[in-house]
Amino acid sequence: MASKTPVGFIGLGNMGNPMAKNLMKHGYPLIVYDVFPDVCKEFKEAGEQVASSPADVAEKADRIITMLPSSMNSVEVYSGANGILKKVKKGSLLIDSSTIDPSVSKELAKEVEKMGAVFMDAPVSGDCSDKQIQSSAERRELCVVGEQVDSGVGAARSGNLTFMVGGVEDEFAAAQELLGCMGSNVVYCGAVGTGQSAKICNNMLLAISMIGTAEAMNLGIRSGLDPKLLAKILNMSSGRCWSSDTYNPVPGVMHGVPSSNNYQGGFGTTLMAKDLGLAQDSATSTKTPILLGSLAHQIYRMMCSKGYSKKDFSSVFQYLREEETF
Amino acid sequence: MASKTPVGFIGLGNMGNPMAKNLMKHGYPLIVYDVFPDVCKEFKEAGEQVASSPADVAEKADRIITMLPSSMNSVEVYSGANGILKKVKKGSLLIDSSTIDPSVSKELAKEVEKMGAVFMDAPVSGDCSDKQIQSSAERRELCVVGEQVDSGVGAARSGNLTFMVGGVEDEFAAAQELLGCMGSNVVYCGAVGTGQSAKICNNMLLAISMIGTAEAMNLGIRSGLDPKLLAKILNMSSGRCWSSDTYNPVPGVMHGVPSSNNYQGGFGTTLMAKDLGLAQDSATSTKTPILLGSLAHQIYRMMCSKGYSKKDFSSVFQYLREEETF
Amino acid sequence: MASKTPVGFIGLGNMGNPMAKNLMKHGYPLIVYDVFPDVCKEFKEAGEQVASSPADVAEKADRIITMLPSSMNSVEVYSGANGILKKVKKGSLLIDSSTIDPSVSKELAKEVEKMGAVFMDAPVSGDCSDKQIQSSAERRELCVVGEQVDSGVGAARSGNLTFMVGGVEDEFAAAQELLGCMGSNVVYCGAVGTGQSAKICNNMLLAISMIGTAEAMNLGIRSGLDPKLLAKILNMSSGRCWSSDTYNPVPGVMHGVPSSNNYQGGFGTTLMAKDLGLAQDSATSTKTPILLGSLAHQIYRMMCSKGYSKKDFSSVFQYLREEETF
Amino acid sequence: MASKTPVGFIGLGNMGNPMAKNLMKHGYPLIVYDVFPDVCKEFKEAGEQVASSPADVAEKADRIITMLPSSMNSVEVYSGANGILKKVKKGSLLIDSSTIDPSVSKELAKEVEKMGAVFMDAPVSGDCSDKQIQSSAERRELCVVGEQVDSGVGAARSGNLTFMVGGVEDEFAAAQELLGCMGSNVVYCGAVGTGQSAKICNNMLLAISMIGTAEAMNLGIRSGLDPKLLAKILNMSSGRCWSSDTYNPVPGVMHGVPSSNNYQGGFGTTLMAKDLGLAQDSATSTKTPILLGSLAHQIYRMMCSKGYSKKDFSSVFQYLREEETF
Repeated sequence: MASKTPVGFIGLGNMGNPMAKNLMKHGYPLIVYDVFPDVCKEFKEAGEQVASSPADVAEKADRIITMLPSSMNSVEVYSGANGILKKVKKGSLLIDSSTIDPSVSKELAKEVEKMGAVFMDAPVSGDCSDKQIQSSAERRELCVVGEQVDSGVGAARSGNLTFMVGGVEDEFAAAQELLGCMGSNVVYCGAVGTGQSAKICNNMLLAISMIGTAEAMNLGIRSGLDPKLLAKILNMSSGRCWSSDTYNPVPGVMHGVPSSNNYQGGFGTTLMAKDLGLAQDSATSTKTPILLGSLAHQIYRMMCSKGYSKKDFSSVFQYLREEETF
Repeated sequence: MASKTPVGFIGLGNMGNPMAKNLMKHGYPLIVYDVFPDVCKEFKEAGEQVASSPADVAEKADRIITMLPSSMNSVEVYSGANGILKKVKKGSLLIDSSTIDPSVSKELAKEVEKMGAVFMDAPVSGDCSDKQIQSSAERRELCVVGEQVDSGVGAARSGNLTFMVGGVEDEFAAAQELLGCMGSNVVYCGAVGTGQSAKICNNMLLAISMIGTAEAMNLGIRSGLDPKLLAKILNMSSGRCWSSDTYNPVPGVMHGVPSSNNYQGGFGTTLMAKDLGLAQDSATSTKTPILLGSLAHQIYRMMCSKGYSKKDFSSVFQYLREEETF
Repeated sequence: MASKTPVGFIGLGNMGNPMAKNLMKHGYPLIVYDVFPDVCKEFKEAGEQVASSPADVAEKADRIITMLPSSMNSVEVYSGANGILKKVKKGSLLIDSSTIDPSVSKELAKEVEKMGAVFMDAPVSGDCSDKQIQSSAERRELCVVGEQVDSGVGAARSGNLTFMVGGVEDEFAAAQELLGCMGSNVVYCGAVGTGQSAKICNNMLLAISMIGTAEAMNLGIRSGLDPKLLAKILNMSSGRCWSSDTYNPVPGVMHGVPSSNNYQGGFGTTLMAKDLGLAQDSATSTKTPILLGSLAHQIYRMMCSKGYSKKDFSSVFQYLREEETF
Repeated sequence: MASKTPVGFIGLGNMGNPMAKNLMKHGYPLIVYDVFPDVCKEFKEAGEQVASSPADVAEKADRIITMLPSSMNSVEVYSGANGILKKVKKGSLLIDSSTIDPSVSKELAKEVEKMGAVFMDAPVSGDCSDKQIQSSAERRELCVVGEQVDSGVGAARSGNLTFMVGGVEDEFAAAQELLGCMGSNVVYCGAVGTGQSAKICNNMLLAISMIGTAEAMNLGIRSGLDPKLLAKILNMSSGRCWSSDTYNPVPGVMHGVPSSNNYQGGFGTTLMAKDLGLAQDSATSTKTPILLGSLAHQIYRMMCSKGYSKKDFSSVFQYLREEETF
C-alpha cells in the first residue's frame, strides 16, 4: 500500500469530504483543495497535502477526482485561471463526480483531451449525506440512485455510493480502482456524458412517478379510499413504482420515509428542481419531447417558491393535498 | 352443488363470456341476457336459461352480475324501460363488474337500495382477454390490475382476474362467493364506488409512469445510452416502475411484451384514454388537482387520432420517438 | 304594454334578481320562484306573483326564464318532483340562462320537447354583478363575455349583458324579445347547447391567454424588463390579447383593473375553475384534445386551494410570481 | 452622404441580405462577410468591400451589425479564432440582430466591453422574409413582432422591421441611426439581453395563445358551432387575441393567412420550437415557472417530428384536429 501514488481531490463539501476519507482508508495519499481553506484543515491534520489551487493539484497528482455543486464550478475548476488545465500532466486521469449538464462534461472532456489527458464523468447517487438516522428494514432499499436516504454515517461515508461512469472504455478499469473505494456500484454507461445522462433520466422518471403517485393517492383518498389499502392495491398492480412501494409520499402509509417525518430529510425539492432543469436542457438540446418531464419540472419549480424548497421531494403530496377553501 | 340457486349474468362480451363460464364450472346455473341474441346461443346449448330482458333476469334470479362497456350501458341495463329495477326482488345482490364512473355506481346503488336490494361495484383487472399467447417467465408478472396481458385463454377464462369491490361490507362475503369463482383476487375497497376509484387511480398512475418511462428512455437513447443498459440502471434505481421493469415500452429491451411485438396485444390506447377520461371526471367532481394525470389523458387522446388507437398503450414510446424531420 | 302576458322567472340570485327587474321595467308581469322565499319578498311587494314551486310557475306562465348556479340545480328545477316539466303547457318557451354542461342542456331540451314545449340555452356574460365601482375609461372595454367587470349597478342591472343562445332557430325571435330586455347583445349560436359551448370555449381561451400573459410578463420582469414597457411591446405585437391589453394581470401596468386593486372584484378564480371543469367535460365527451386548456384547469384548481379562490382570476400572476425561497 | 464611414455587416442570409441593402440605400458604404463566399459576390459587384473574416471586418469598420442563425454562430463570429474580438477597435459599436439566448448576449457584451467596445442586442421581428405575396387589407396588420408575414419583398427589404434593443442607454442613439435605416420601429428595452428577452416573451405568449385558439376553435367546432361564428364571438369577447382576430388558425375563417393556404408561408413550426427552447432556457436559468409555455414548447417539439416542421405554426389546429380513428 505504501507504493500508491497520491490522488488529487478537489471539492470537500458534504459529499466530497467522506468520499476523500474513504480513499484515505484504502491507503491513497491525497492532495486536496477546496475554495474554503477551513475544510482542508482536517485533511492537513491527518497528514495529507493541501494544494494552493486546482492547478497546483494537477502539478502534483496524475489522478484527480472533482466533486462540485454545479456546471459553473466544474468549468472554473478545470478551465479557470488557476484551473487543472493550466498544469495537467499528460496521461492524467481526471474524474468529475459532480452532477452537471452532460454537454458541459463533453466540453471539458475535449479540452482535457487536447492536453493529452483523460476525462470521465462519474456522477454519484446518494448525494444527501446529511440524512437522519433511520433503522427500519426498508432503510436499505432506500439506498438508491439519486435519493440516497441513508443512515447518519451516510452512503458516502459507508462507501455505499453508486457511480455512473461515462468516458473512454479503456480507461474504465483505472477509474474503477478509485471509485470502487468510495462506492459499492460502479456502472459503465458509455461515452463521456452518458454517466450524467443516466442519472438525469432516472431522476426525471423518479419525479414523474412521484408526482403521479401523489396525484393517484390524493384522488383515491378524496374518493373515499383508505390510503394504506390504496397503496397496497397499487403495489400489487401495474401502478407500482419506487415512489409508491418504497417511498410512499402519504404520511402514515410507510415507516422510515420522509412523508412520515413531516417531509424532513430525504432528497430536497430544490435539488430535484435542479436535476429537472438539467433534464430540460438535455431535452431541448437533443430535441426530445418530454411532456410530463417538463411539467414535473415546472411543478417542482413552483413548489420551491411556495415554502417547499427544503422539504423532501415527496412533499408534492402535501402540496397537492391542501384543501380548497370554499 | 345441485342446490345452488341460479345466478343472473348480463353482458356476455369478450370479458363476460368467459366469466360466466367460470361460474358454470363452479356449478352455478345461469340465467343470461345480452343485447346481441347470438352470443346467448352457446349458453342455451349448454343448458342455461336465456332471459328476454334485464327485467326478466331480475324476476328469475336474486344474484345478478353485470359486465358492460360503459356508464351509459350500465344505466340502461339497471334503470331502463326493461331494466333490472323494474322487477328486482327484495334482498337481491346486484354486482356490476363494468368499469364506469364511480358517481354512476353510487347513483345506481341508491336506486337499487330504494328497491330493497343491494348493489356492489366490482370492476375487474384483466380486461383484455384477446391477448396473444406468450410463454416466457415474465408472463405471470404481467397479470396485473388493468392490463392483464394473458395467455390465449385469458385471465378471464383461467379465473385469474382481480376484482376491486365497493359496497356495504356486510354483503362482501356474499359477493366474494361468486367473484371468487372468476378471479384469484377479490379485494374489498370500501363504500360503493371505491372499487371503481381504486381501478381508476391505478390506471392513472400506470399511464403517467408509462409515459414517464417512454420519455426517460427516449431522452437517454438520444443522449447516447444503450436502451438495455439504461433500463437496467433505472430498474436498480428510484426510477423503477412496473412500466420500466415489467412492461418496458422500448422494442428489444424485454421479451414477451407488446413493445417487442410491434405494440400488438396488450392494453389498447383507446381503453387507456377511456380510463383517463374517468379519472379526469372523478378529479373534476372531487376538485382534485391532477396535473400529470390530466396531461397523460390528453396525450393518449392525441394518440387515438394519430393511428395509435388499437396499439398497446406502451406505444407512447413510438409516438414520442419519431424523429424530427429537419 | 298592459297586454303583455306574464313571464315566469326562477332563480333570483345575484344575476337573476336584476335580470328579472329589467323584464319588469319593460312591462312584463312576473311569476317568480326561488328556493329562498326571502328573495321573492321584494318582488311580491312590487306587485308580482310569487309561485310555490317551479311546477306552479309552469302552470301559470308559458314563457319561463331560469337562472341557476349549476347543472344539478337546472336538472332539479326542470325534472325534479315539483319541477317545471310536471306542469309545463304545450307550446311554452323555456329559456335557461344558467351556465351548465351543454350535454345537460341537450338532455333537458329532449325532455321539454317530449312535453310539446321548447327549450333554449342562453348563458350570459357578465355574471359578476357584485363588482366594485370603477370609473376609468378602460371600464367600458371590460364589459366582455364572461368577465363583465362592471360599474356598481352591474351589467345585469344596466341591461348590458350578452346572451349566447342555442336552440331551434325558429324560436329565436321569441327568445330575443325577452332577452333583449335584459341584454344588449343576443347572439344566435345554433342548435341547443351551442350557447353553452360558445361561452365555455371563450372562457377556456381566456384562461389560457391570461395564464400565458402572466407567465410572459413574469419571465420578462425576471429577465430585467420593465413591466409597462413589456406590456406595450406585447400589445403592439403578436402576443397581444385581451388579458394583456385590457385586463393586464401585473399590478401597476393598468388602472381600473383588479390587478391594481389587490385582485379584488372581477371574475373569481373559483368561477373560472368551474367553467374550465365544464370545458374539460365537453372535451372528454367529444374526445377533443385540450392540452393547454386542461393544464389551465389544473392550475386554477390548485389556486383555489392556495388562498386564491376569491381573488380575481388574473391573480395567477401573483401565484406564479412568488419568489423562490432559496 | 459621401462622408459616411463604412459599416461592417456579417451574415448575409435571408434576413441579413435585404437588411444590408437597406443600409446601402441610405448611403452607408459596407464591409461585408459571410461564411458562404457566394453570397458576398453580389455586394462586391455593387461596389462594396468584402472582408476575409469577422476579424478583418473589425479591423476596417468601427460599426458592425451581425445577423446569424444561432447562439453558437454568434459566439463563433465574436469570440472565434478569426472573430471580431481579435481585431475590434476601441470605441466600436457592435450590434447583434440574431435571436439568441439572452445569457449569451450578456456574455458577449462582457467580452466586448473588456476590449473597450460596445455591444448591443437587437433582435428583429419579421424574420421570415420568404413569405408568399399577399395583398389583402389584413396583410399590413400581420407585420408584427416575430411573425412577419410579408409580401415577397419582405419586411426586411421594405425596411418595415421592428428592432428590440438591449444595451447601454447612452449608445442607443448611435444604434438607432443604423437600425432606423432597416426598420420602422426601434424600441429601447433596457440593459443588454433585454431585447432578446422581449422577443422571447412575446413569442412564448404568441405560441400559448395560438395553441389556445386552436383548442378553443376545435372544441367549439366539435360541439356544433360554426367556425366563423365562433371566431366572431371570441373576437368580441375576452378570448380575443392576435391568433384569433388576425391570424386565425382555422381554414376558411380568414383570408390572407397561412391557415387558408394549407399553412404555407408564415412563421414555421421549427422556428417557433427554437424560440420556445430559448424561452425554456431563460425560464430555467431565472427559475421562473412557465407551465403553459413549457407545454407549448413540447407541443411544437412534437409537431416538428410529425411532419409539421415546415408548416406555419398555426397548423397546430390541423395537428389537434385530426379525427380519432375509432
